[in-house]
Amino acid sequence: MEHWLDEPHHDPSLGGADASTPRLGDAVPVRVWVPHAHRARQVVLRVLCDAEPLVTPARIDREDDTGTWWSAEVAVRNPVASYRFLLDGADGSYAWLNGSGRHGHDVTDAEDFRLVAETPGPSWAADSVVYQVFPDRFARSSASLADGRDAAPRRPVLPEWAVPVGWDEPVAYHGPLTGRQFYGGDLWGLAEHLDHISSLGADVLSLTPFFQAGSTHRYDATTFDRVDPLLGGEAALRALIAAAHARGLRVLGDLTTNHTGSGHEWFTAAQADADSVEAGFYRFTEHPHGYASWLTVPSLPKLDHASPELRRRLITDPDSVVARWLRPPVDLDGWRIDVANMTGRLGVDDRAHEVARAVRAAMAAVDADDGRQRWLLAEHGHDAGGDLAARGWHGTMNYSTFTRPLWSWLTVPGHGIGWLGMPLEVPSLSGRAMVATMRAFVAGMPWAALTRSVNSLDSHDTARFRTVVGGERTGAPTGSAAGRERHLVGLALQATLPGVPMVFAGDEFGLTGLTGEHSRTPMPWNRPDRTDAPTLDAYRFWLRLRRENVALRRGGLRWVRADDDSVTFLREHPDQRVLVHVDRGQGSAGGRRSPRPVHLPRAGLGLVSGDRLQTLAGADAACEDEHTVTLPSASGGGVAAHVYQLSPQ
Amino acid sequence: MEHWLDEPHHDPSLGGADASTPRLGDAVPVRVWVPHAHRARQVVLRVLCDAEPLVTPARIDREDDTGTWWSAEVAVRNPVASYRFLLDGADGSYAWLNGSGRHGHDVTDAEDFRLVAETPGPSWAADSVVYQVFPDRFARSSASLADGRDAAPRRPVLPEWAVPVGWDEPVAYHGPLTGRQFYGGDLWGLAEHLDHISSLGADVLSLTPFFQAGSTHRYDATTFDRVDPLLGGEAALRALIAAAHARGLRVLGDLTTNHTGSGHEWFTAAQADADSVEAGFYRFTEHPHGYASWLTVPSLPKLDHASPELRRRLITDPDSVVARWLRPPVDLDGWRIDVANMTGRLGVDDRAHEVARAVRAAMAAVDADDGRQRWLLAEHGHDAGGDLAARGWHGTMNYSTFTRPLWSWLTVPGHGIGWLGMPLEVPSLSGRAMVATMRAFVAGMPWAALTRSVNSLDSHDTARFRTVVGGERTGAPTGSAAGRERHLVGLALQATLPGVPMVFAGDEFGLTGLTGEHSRTPMPWNRPDRTDAPTLDAYRFWLRLRRENVALRRGGLRWVRADDDSVTFLREHPDQRVLVHVDRGQGSAGGRRSPRPVHLPRAGLGLVSGDRLQTLAGADAACEDEHTVTLPSASGGGVAAHVYQLSPQ
Repeated sequence: MEHWLDEPHHDPSLGGADASTPRLGDAVPVRVWVPHAHRARQVVLRVLCDAEPLVTPARIDREDDTGTWWSAEVAVRNPVASYRFLLDGADGSYAWLNGSGRHGHDVTDAEDFRLVAETPGPSWAADSVVYQVFPDRFARSSASLADGRDAAPRRPVLPEWAVPVGWDEPVAYHGPLTGRQFYGGDLWGLAEHLDHISSLGADVLSLTPFFQAGSTHRYDATTFDRVDPLLGGEAALRALIAAAHARGLRVLGDLTTNHTGSGHEWFTAAQADADSVEAGFYRFTEHPHGYASWLTVPSLPKLDHASPELRRRLITDPDSVVARWLRPPVDLDGWRIDVANMTGRLGVDDRAHEVARAVRAAMAAVDADDGRQRWLLAEHGHDAGGDLAARGWHGTMNYSTFTRPLWSWLTVPGHGIGWLGMPLEVPSLSGRAMVATMRAFVAGMPWAALTRSVNSLDSHDTARFRTVVGGERTGAPTGSAAGRERHLVGLALQATLPGVPMVFAGDEFGLTGLTGEHSRTPMPWNRPDRTDAPTLDAYRFWLRLRRENVALRRGGLRWVRADDDSVTFLREHPDQRVLVHVDRGQGSAGGRRSPRPVHLPRAGLGLVSGDRLQTLAGADAACEDEHTVTLPSASGGGVAAHVYQLSPQ
Repeated sequence: MEHWLDEPHHDPSLGGADASTPRLGDAVPVRVWVPHAHRARQVVLRVLCDAEPLVTPARIDREDDTGTWWSAEVAVRNPVASYRFLLDGADGSYAWLNGSGRHGHDVTDAEDFRLVAETPGPSWAADSVVYQVFPDRFARSSASLADGRDAAPRRPVLPEWAVPVGWDEPVAYHGPLTGRQFYGGDLWGLAEHLDHISSLGADVLSLTPFFQAGSTHRYDATTFDRVDPLLGGEAALRALIAAAHARGLRVLGDLTTNHTGSGHEWFTAAQADADSVEAGFYRFTEHPHGYASWLTVPSLPKLDHASPELRRRLITDPDSVVARWLRPPVDLDGWRIDVANMTGRLGVDDRAHEVARAVRAAMAAVDADDGRQRWLLAEHGHDAGGDLAARGWHGTMNYSTFTRPLWSWLTVPGHGIGWLGMPLEVPSLSGRAMVATMRAFVAGMPWAALTRSVNSLDSHDTARFRTVVGGERTGAPTGSAAGRERHLVGLALQATLPGVPMVFAGDEFGLTGLTGEHSRTPMPWNRPDRTDAPTLDAYRFWLRLRRENVALRRGGLRWVRADDDSVTFLREHPDQRVLVHVDRGQGSAGGRRSPRPVHLPRAGLGLVSGDRLQTLAGADAACEDEHTVTLPSASGGGVAAHVYQLSPQ
C-alpha cells in the first residue's frame, strides 16, 4: 500500500479551476501544506524565468496541530511558468515537491507545476458533462423507416460506399463492410432524442464528423462546406443546434485538420493540376499519386500547413472552415480536432503549436463577436502535456491520463482486447499502478488544461468499457451483471476525478463492443431487452452527483492512498471538500478476496473533533474513535464506490 | 540498497559514442537485454512518428543462460526519434523500459530514449579531457613581474576597473573589490605553461572570455572584435593557439550570446541613438536607460536576437563574431556559450533553439572549409534535455547530471556552501539518491549530447570541490588530507562516467574556494607549499586511465547497484567492458563505518567460467567461488575507487 495523507501537498488548481487567468507580469500566489512529519525549516519556491531557475523563500501563512501552510508568489515572466518547491527539512532532509509528489533528490523539470499565461478556454467546460454521438448509429428520424434495409426513403440516392443495413444488424468490425454499413441515423433523429441526453445530466453534445465524406465515420471528408445530406444536411444541423441550445445543451463539431479524404474537393483539384493552389495543401512526393497521408493510408492525404492559402481557408479567414460553422446560422459551441497530435507535423516540419494557436485565435475571434466561449478539444492518444502547455488546444481526450490507467485497473484478464494499436491485451494492474500513471500524466498537464479535457471510459475508437471490464467475449449486445459492477466503479471515477466526463452514447445502456468499429453500436431505442436499467440509473445518479458538488467539478486533487484493489482521494475546493473511496472488489488474479476496511487518521483529513463524514454515495463511513475514520470495504467482496463530504457537524 | 544487474537493459549508445549518425529515413538497429528473471513473451518497440506512437514487435537475436537479446529498428521519421520498449512478461507482468529504467505502469514520454537525426558534433570530444582556465589567475608571463603590486609593467595603462594585486593575495569574494582584482595573468603566461596542462592528460584548453571587458571575469565584453590588451591582445591569443595546436591541444573560447557589457560598443551606439541599428540589438523599455538585462543586472544588457542585423554580425555573416575567431589566423576549436539557457529567451519570445541552430550552422560552415570539427558547448545550469535535443548546442556543462548529484553524495555537512543561488547548504544524500538524479537527467539527454558534454567537479562559477567535500571553512589555500580522499573519489567518477572530464585549473593542486568568485584562485606556481602532490599524481593517474580505456570514453552506461555509501556501474563498449566501484567511506552522518564488501553474481556481469577481473585501479576483487565476485570495501573504512576490466583469462 502507498499512502500520501502525511505528504506535503500543493494544489495547482489554486482553489478552483475557475481561478483567474494568470497574465504575463503577474505574481500568482501559491500555497504548500507541509505536515509536521516533514516539518521544514525553509520552503523555497523555484520558478523558471527565461529558462533560468530563480528561487525565492516561501513564508509561513499559518500552522496548526497537523502542519504548516507556506505561501509564495510565482512570477509569471514567460507564457509557461514552470515551478516547484524545495523543502529544507528540520531533520536535515532534502526534498523537492513537484507534480508527481515528493522526491528526496534533484529532479528534472518534466514534472514541474505549470501555469500558462493565457485565457484558458471556456470556464463552463469544467462544469459540463459531454455526451458523444456517432450520428449514423444514434437514431433514425421518425420520418425514416423504423427498421429494414430500405433505411432512408427520403434520401434519393445512396453514395457508392454506403451499404444500407437494418438497425438491429450486428456491426461489421472487420472485413469489407467495415466503415460502409449505413444504419441511417441522422441529425433529425438525434434532435428527437435530446430528452434522453438531458435526462442523463449531460449538457454538451459532441458529434463525430458531419461533413459529406467517403465512409460512415466521415473522417475522410470530401468537403468542409456541406453537411452530409445522408445526415439531413445543413438544415438538420441547424435545427439540431437550435433545439439543443433551447434546452441548454451545447454542441461540438469534429474537424480533421490533419488530413482530408482523398475524395475531398481540395484533393481532387490538387491531383488534377500540380500547379493549382490546392496542390500546395498536400505534400506530393510524386504528383498525382504519391503523397503523404495519415499513417500511409492513401484515402487520407495529409494536409500541409505550410501553405498560407490552406491556413487562410481552413483557419484564419473570417469565413474559414473553423470559423464559419461556429457562427450563426449554424452556431457550434466548439470543435473536437481529430488527430490533433499529428496535425502540422511531418518529418522535419513541426508546425503543430503554430496551427493549434491559429485555430484557438480564430475561435477567440468568433467568441469576441458574440461574447460566448467556445471549446477547442484535441484528440491526443498519448502524452499531451507539451502540446497542452503550448497555448493552442484548450484540452484533450484524456486517454493516457484517465481511460487507459482505468482500463488497466478494472479489466478482467483474458478478454484479449488491446489498446489503440498495442499488440497485447490490456494488462491488469494494481490501484497503485493506476495512480502512478495518473499522477505522472496529470503532472505533465497544466491544471487549466486538465479541467478542460474529457475523461471517457471509451469512445468510438476503442472497445466498450463494459466489455473490457466484463471479461465476456460472447458478443452479447449488453454486458453481464458482473461487468456492471466494475463498469459502475469506472463511472464513479469518471464522475469524481478532475476532467470533464464524456459518455459515449450507449454506455449508459451497458452496451458492449470488442473494438472501436464494433463499439459504433446502433442505440437500442426499440429494444429494451438490450438496455441495462441499473446501469442507466447509475449514470443519472453519478452525473447528477458531480453536478451537485462543486468540489467534484472544480476542486483540486489530492491522492490519499492506493493499494491493489482500492484507491482513495480528496477533491478540495474553497466551498467543499469531498473524499472518494473506490474498491474494485477482487484482485487481478480474479479470485474473490475478503473485505478489507480502510482506516484513515481524522487529523490527516483535516477533521477536527466533532466533524463528521456526510455520505453522498455508497455506504456510511464509521468514526470508530476520535482519531480514525473507517471506510467501508466492498460489500461482500464486491465492487463499491463511496463518496463523502467532509463537513462540520 | 538498490541493484539493477538483473534488470532489462538498453544501451542508447549503440555500442559506442562514435556510432554513425542517424539520418532522416534511417532504420537504426537497437537491442534490449532481458534477463530470465523478467523473461518476456513479447518485446515491443514504441517510436513516436509525427507525434503518433507506432509499435513494432522486436525479435529474438540470441539467448544464453542469463537472458535474451531482442532487436528491432527505430524508424527515424523526425529529427528527434523518441522511443522506448514494452516488455510483455511471460508471467503476465507488464513493464516499460525507458531511459530511467523499468516501470510497471504506463509512463509519459519524458524519459524516452532519443536519437537525434543530426551530425552530433565533434567525434573527438568524447575522447578528450578539458582543462578550464580563468586567464587573469593562471599565470603571468615571464616578461611581467613575478610578484608585487606593479603587476604588468609592459601594459602602460590599466583601465579604471582594474585594481592590481599581488599574485599571493587572497581573492576578494565579496565587497567592492569583487571582480576588480587584477592579478595580471595573461595569454603569454598561459602559453608558457602548456607542459603542465599536457602532463595532466588534458588535450582541450577552455578559456573564460578573452575579449576586452569591464571586469576581471570579462563576461561583460565591451567589444567582440579585440582580445583584451591586458591579456596580451590578439597576438598573444594567436601565439597561444598555435603553440597549443603544435602539441595537440585544442582551444575553446567563451562567448556571451545572451548579453554584452553595458560598455560594449554596440550598446553605447544603441544608447546614443534610439534610431541606430544597434538600438535594435537590445530591448529598450525606455531609451536610453531602461532595458532588459541579465537577471536585472544593468551592466549586462540582454541581446535581442529578433534583430536580423545582430544575427548577421554575431552569427551568420562569414565574418561574424562566431565565425571569424574560429578561422585562421586565430583558429579556435570551438566555443563555450555563456548563459546558453537564457540566450534568445525573454518573456513571450523564445528564439533559443533558432539561435543555437544558427550558431551550430555557422560553425559547421567553418568546419566545411577546413575539414575540422569544432565543438559547441552550452552553459546550462539545470535541465538541459529539451535544449540538447533541439539540434543546436552539441553538449552542455553537466552541472545537473554530474556535478550537483556528486556534490550531494560526497559533501560533508556543515560547510554552509550552497549551490548556484540556492539558499541552503548542499545536502548530504545517499549513493542511491545520486544515481536516481543521474539516471533522470541522463534519460533526458540524447546520448550523443551526453558524450559531448563536460563533467566538472566545479568551475569558476562554484565553490571548489575540495572545499565542498573537505568540510573545512578555514580558508586554507589547500585542502586537508581528509578532503583529498573524497576529492579523489569524485575524480574517479569524473574519469569513469560518460561525459568529458573538465578540470578547473587548480583542482589538480587541491586548491580550495568557498564561492565561484573565491575559486578564481591564482595558480600557486611558485608556492609548492600550496600544492598537494598526491592530488596532482592522482589527476595524472585517473585521466590517463580514461585515455587508455576505450570503454571509459565511449562505452555505454549500465548501473549495477547503489546504497548509501557506494555505487557500482558498468561501462560497456564492443572492444572492452569495465566495472567501476566507488565507496565514499562513511555515511552522511560523518561517522566511520565498518567495511562492507559488495558481492555480485558473476553471471549477471556476463562472466563465464574462468573469466577474471583485471584490476585497472584500486584493490583486487576476489572471486570467492564460481558464482560470486566480491568487490573490496573501502580500506579501513576510508574512501576508495576500484576499476576492473572484465576480460577473458
